Amino acid sequence: MTQYRAALFGAGEMGTTHAHNLMADGRLSLAYVVDPSRERAEALAAATGARVAGVDEAFADPDIAAHIIATPPRTHADYLDRAARTRAHVFCEKPVDHDLPRARACLAAFGARAAVVQIGFNRRFDPDFIALKGALGAGRIGRAEQVLVISRDAEAPPVEGFLQSSGLLKETAVHDFDLIRWLLEDEVAEVFVMGDALINPDYLRVDQIDTTTTTLRMRRGTHVTVLNSLRAAWGYDQRLEVMGSLGQASVGNLAPHQVVLSTADGIRGEKPHQGYFQRYAAAYRAEIAAFATAVTTGAAVTPNGQDGIRASEVAEAALLSWREGRPIRL
Amino acid sequence: MTQYRAALFGAGEMGTTHAHNLMADGRLSLAYVVDPSRERAEALAAATGARVAGVDEAFADPDIAAHIIATPPRTHADYLDRAARTRAHVFCEKPVDHDLPRARACLAAFGARAAVVQIGFNRRFDPDFIALKGALGAGRIGRAEQVLVISRDAEAPPVEGFLQSSGLLKETAVHDFDLIRWLLEDEVAEVFVMGDALINPDYLRVDQIDTTTTTLRMRRGTHVTVLNSLRAAWGYDQRLEVMGSLGQASVGNLAPHQVVLSTADGIRGEKPHQGYFQRYAAAYRAEIAAFATAVTTGAAVTPNGQDGIRASEVAEAALLSWREGRPIRL
Amino acid sequence: MTQYRAALFGAGEMGTTHAHNLMADGRLSLAYVVDPSRERAEALAAATGARVAGVDEAFADPDIAAHIIATPPRTHADYLDRAARTRAHVFCEKPVDHDLPRARACLAAFGARAAVVQIGFNRRFDPDFIALKGALGAGRIGRAEQVLVISRDAEAPPVEGFLQSSGLLKETAVHDFDLIRWLLEDEVAEVFVMGDALINPDYLRVDQIDTTTTTLRMRRGTHVTVLNSLRAAWGYDQRLEVMGSLGQASVGNLAPHQVVLSTADGIRGEKPHQGYFQRYAAAYRAEIAAFATAVTTGAAVTPNGQDGIRASEVAEAALLSWREGRPIRL
Amino acid sequence: MTQYRAALFGAGEMGTTHAHNLMADGRLSLAYVVDPSRERAEALAAATGARVAGVDEAFADPDIAAHIIATPPRTHADYLDRAARTRAHVFCEKPVDHDLPRARACLAAFGARAAVVQIGFNRRFDPDFIALKGALGAGRIGRAEQVLVISRDAEAPPVEGFLQSSGLLKETAVHDFDLIRWLLEDEVAEVFVMGDALINPDYLRVDQIDTTTTTLRMRRGTHVTVLNSLRAAWGYDQRLEVMGSLGQASVGNLAPHQVVLSTADGIRGEKPHQGYFQRYAAAYRAEIAAFATAVTTGAAVTPNGQDGIRASEVAEAALLSWREGRPIRL
Repeated sequence: MTQYRAALFGAGEMGTTHAHNLMADGRLSLAYVVDPSRERAEALAAATGARVAGVDEAFADPDIAAHIIATPPRTHADYLDRAARTRAHVFCEKPVDHDLPRARACLAAFGARAAVVQIGFNRRFDPDFIALKGALGAGRIGRAEQVLVISRDAEAPPVEGFLQSSGLLKETAVHDFDLIRWLLEDEVAEVFVMGDALINPDYLRVDQIDTTTTTLRMRRGTHVTVLNSLRAAWGYDQRLEVMGSLGQASVGNLAPHQVVLSTADGIRGEKPHQGYFQRYAAAYRAEIAAFATAVTTGAAVTPNGQDGIRASEVAEAALLSWREGRPIRL
Repeated sequence: MTQYRAALFGAGEMGTTHAHNLMADGRLSLAYVVDPSRERAEALAAATGARVAGVDEAFADPDIAAHIIATPPRTHADYLDRAARTRAHVFCEKPVDHDLPRARACLAAFGARAAVVQIGFNRRFDPDFIALKGALGAGRIGRAEQVLVISRDAEAPPVEGFLQSSGLLKETAVHDFDLIRWLLEDEVAEVFVMGDALINPDYLRVDQIDTTTTTLRMRRGTHVTVLNSLRAAWGYDQRLEVMGSLGQASVGNLAPHQVVLSTADGIRGEKPHQGYFQRYAAAYRAEIAAFATAVTTGAAVTPNGQDGIRASEVAEAALLSWREGRPIRL
Repeated sequence: MTQYRAALFGAGEMGTTHAHNLMADGRLSLAYVVDPSRERAEALAAATGARVAGVDEAFADPDIAAHIIATPPRTHADYLDRAARTRAHVFCEKPVDHDLPRARACLAAFGARAAVVQIGFNRRFDPDFIALKGALGAGRIGRAEQVLVISRDAEAPPVEGFLQSSGLLKETAVHDFDLIRWLLEDEVAEVFVMGDALINPDYLRVDQIDTTTTTLRMRRGTHVTVLNSLRAAWGYDQRLEVMGSLGQASVGNLAPHQVVLSTADGIRGEKPHQGYFQRYAAAYRAEIAAFATAVTTGAAVTPNGQDGIRASEVAEAALLSWREGRPIRL
Repeated sequence: MTQYRAALFGAGEMGTTHAHNLMADGRLSLAYVVDPSRERAEALAAATGARVAGVDEAFADPDIAAHIIATPPRTHADYLDRAARTRAHVFCEKPVDHDLPRARACLAAFGARAAVVQIGFNRRFDPDFIALKGALGAGRIGRAEQVLVISRDAEAPPVEGFLQSSGLLKETAVHDFDLIRWLLEDEVAEVFVMGDALINPDYLRVDQIDTTTTTLRMRRGTHVTVLNSLRAAWGYDQRLEVMGSLGQASVGNLAPHQVVLSTADGIRGEKPHQGYFQRYAAAYRAEIAAFATAVTTGAAVTPNGQDGIRASEVAEAALLSWREGRPIRL
């Protein structure tokens, strides 16, 4: 039944997740798996009925309707450059590129086709966040006054593992910045960041911080607080709350199961999921389904490259705020 | 400012609680404390500004406006007989008497004054249960179809401690039967009890059971399930739920504080209060306040002696159901 | 990759759910869809890549490894008789047959192959119930003393729609009886049912009741209360709680999303899912996956036909208890 | 039994609350009620058995062991000046004075007696906050990394009512600053405030703001976010959360009752208490009890005048941060 063929770049955990979600969706068939690790590519190809291919072969096939880029961040721009020269829709994990001018050039190369480049901001597709946005949009809580985003990873990486990273603000908080832009349908006007290495002072040796408290003022005045950390002993902590003129709406964490145990030691519930693949399983499915819809109908995607740029601009300003210890206007 | 004088019979934990609540309320002044233990009576008298007295002296004082009977159950009837011959209001812990004919005779002796004998069914005064009854009465959940009462003590007594007890159904479940009568404003039509000694089979040696599952059918058809047990490792477990034609209403447990801890071991809340003095602290205050209002205004009390009899009748039928293994109609 | 071919009998909502779950699982390929309604059969066949077939054709194909029976209850026995004469594994929705002797004969016909007949008691596969059973099995709450099952449908059928039904106890409560047997790994020793037509007295005209309060005593002494009703205005109400010697464990309802709204009207959460296809979506997937594992490995299934019989025996005794107004021993 | 005599200045809602809590505590007897409104003073005196007195008379009585100042903020300093010349303990609502030099001079006048001036930071006495501090102190959640305080009043005052106010930061947030100092046993090192008039732009006409998002860095590095607002349609919103190296601890809102209603419209709980007299009822009782203990034992109080100054210094810095749009170091 499927006729739209897709090429997947990157057979790591992210690419594997997308591949399985594509299979379950059924509308795009995975034609190629591309990965520098032959072993990894073959394993995923075998599991999905796809074929292992090289980069050139995958981009040269004129019958590919969709390129899915799930490779490391530093390689996104090169793949996007190649994809820009095809006629396919493109799904690319964030960021477009950590260097903003490079990212802008990358998208410019798509010209009129920029509308078909979907960026992997998965949280926009979470059913709980969508329901919260729906309540806000329906006026149930009035005008947003103060928003709170808590977004803490479960386990901090070792210092060495952080050497190549673009850091907490550009890697993690950027997701929250996109979430806020989408949720409030508003742009960031000002950002102030308090950032420290509270978990491990050694992070500072590699010019990294592990804990940030970010305050945003949106153009329409809403205050947004984003709490980020590389570690939460109690599980991947992902919460969202909007305090509005007529009410408040919130989304808490999700856990693997709902059993509550009451004993002489107290009342105990299961801790939240340990990572994003579990917490956002439904969001990853929905994000690829939305992409499949765009591919099969020729429609524009959302979030698109421009959304990717905007979120990165906020992250860049946040980084500057931290370095200079002052609020930055956008 | 207070002018109404009260006599308290029983300086145990229950009597002490009533004494302190009387002081805080301020409308009745405690004149006498009566207790076979001189030491206990003196301690409470010292703490409350009352005077230690003998039974005869207390009942002989014509200026006592209120007798408060918080002595062991087997003595209630004798004290009530004495109180019946005064002009005072009476507050008596449940039961009137474990022997129903004796209990009925006891109340009959009050004649026209039966309306001033308040029975200590404290749960009717709990703010949560009152709010639940309010929601039901306002039609918020429609007609009650199925009701669930969970009422488990925190710690089971030793077998010896149970020798004098009238048992789980007549000591504990009777509170739940009164609660249901009050909540539904309906009478029990049928009762079926499944009872066992699941905690300690030795209870059977003294003709006692520790776990009962009681099903009631009310006159208007509502089904009520009452789960009783002598033990709940997780604290004094007191829950109430009504499932109605339009909705459901429930009240859960209360804990000493609301702190929630999330760690690598899960999400932990404090376990419920350990006993009734903590769980029903507000109810005990309100019950004495209601009695003080009746004393100072000369009004009728609620729940009254008749309510005490009715609840005991249900408990008696429940006991029979357990002994004979069949449903009993009232 | 799939090589095991399956035939599906029944293209209604249940059959359609199984068909989609089979596709997502990937290990069994759906070869035939059989349904008296040609239109319904063709729609499902088109969506799944299967072929519409007649009953005879489907049973005659010697290469079918799995028969999936999702037809109306009264037809199960006939299909099982046919399936017994093949070499395939069988998945059959409950009950085997509402007539117990017929059901027993049906399974007897499988002879040594009885171990390959899986009965559709989906709740055993719910992740929350599995986690609760795990906690119980690990001794976290000690020995089960009192168990509570609340199982109320969201919307009651019209009286006419109930004419063909075997009733609340045999249609709905039977799921709860199986759940309890599985959870406690124990058998029912005694049952007492209080049953009424509280929602609609007209049900009595067709010899049906809409509200039942069932008390079970298990062989090892545990008390179980099952509250069933044809209606819960607040959504499909599916709760399970075990009170044990060392603690308590419970599972509450699941809702479509987790947003909590706080406004001047109070704090509002979404009501539970409206029906079993939503509430037990994960369980339906896991149940078919377990069946696929049995088919592809040749293993025995669980729950099997014997489990189906046992649960029906309890339902039958429950019905008798209601009719005769007395507890029934099994 | 009571022998310690107290004088109360201010018979408004706050003074009335203290008077009733004193009565229930029993250790201090209220000798004088002082208030410019004769009517108000007489009503409270009548209810408490105290006598109406003028300021001079009250301060002249050498047998007064405790002065309780519950008058409007601008008058505190004058009353403290008078109290400094007595030998009594002093309980004074916050702030000492909105002018910091004046406040410091005021306390200096007490000399060695500064340790007996208790400031009315009631939240330190809330059982939930105390339990949370206990968990933190016991190392249950490790080292505090990020703290969140949400503190929103239920109803915003009219613009005119705000003319005399020292504003959201000095009136309300100062409570949160004290709470944080107490909770973390640490001092504020840096503060950044984003402040706006989101509820009512007219507040800006009287140089006021209604919504502030404050970020603090404590000396030991902990980040603290304080969200303040003059309005929360969903009730007085008072929450506290600590995210630490080993876990997280939180306290949510309290409501008048715990009934949960589930209907076709969803699951509804009662909204939080409407104001501080309800939410912090237990804290107000405990605060006066702590003061009574200090009075009757001659012990030092906590929080004392120095705590009052410190919290005001943070509020002053916060105000400067808002006015200048930059972080301020203390």
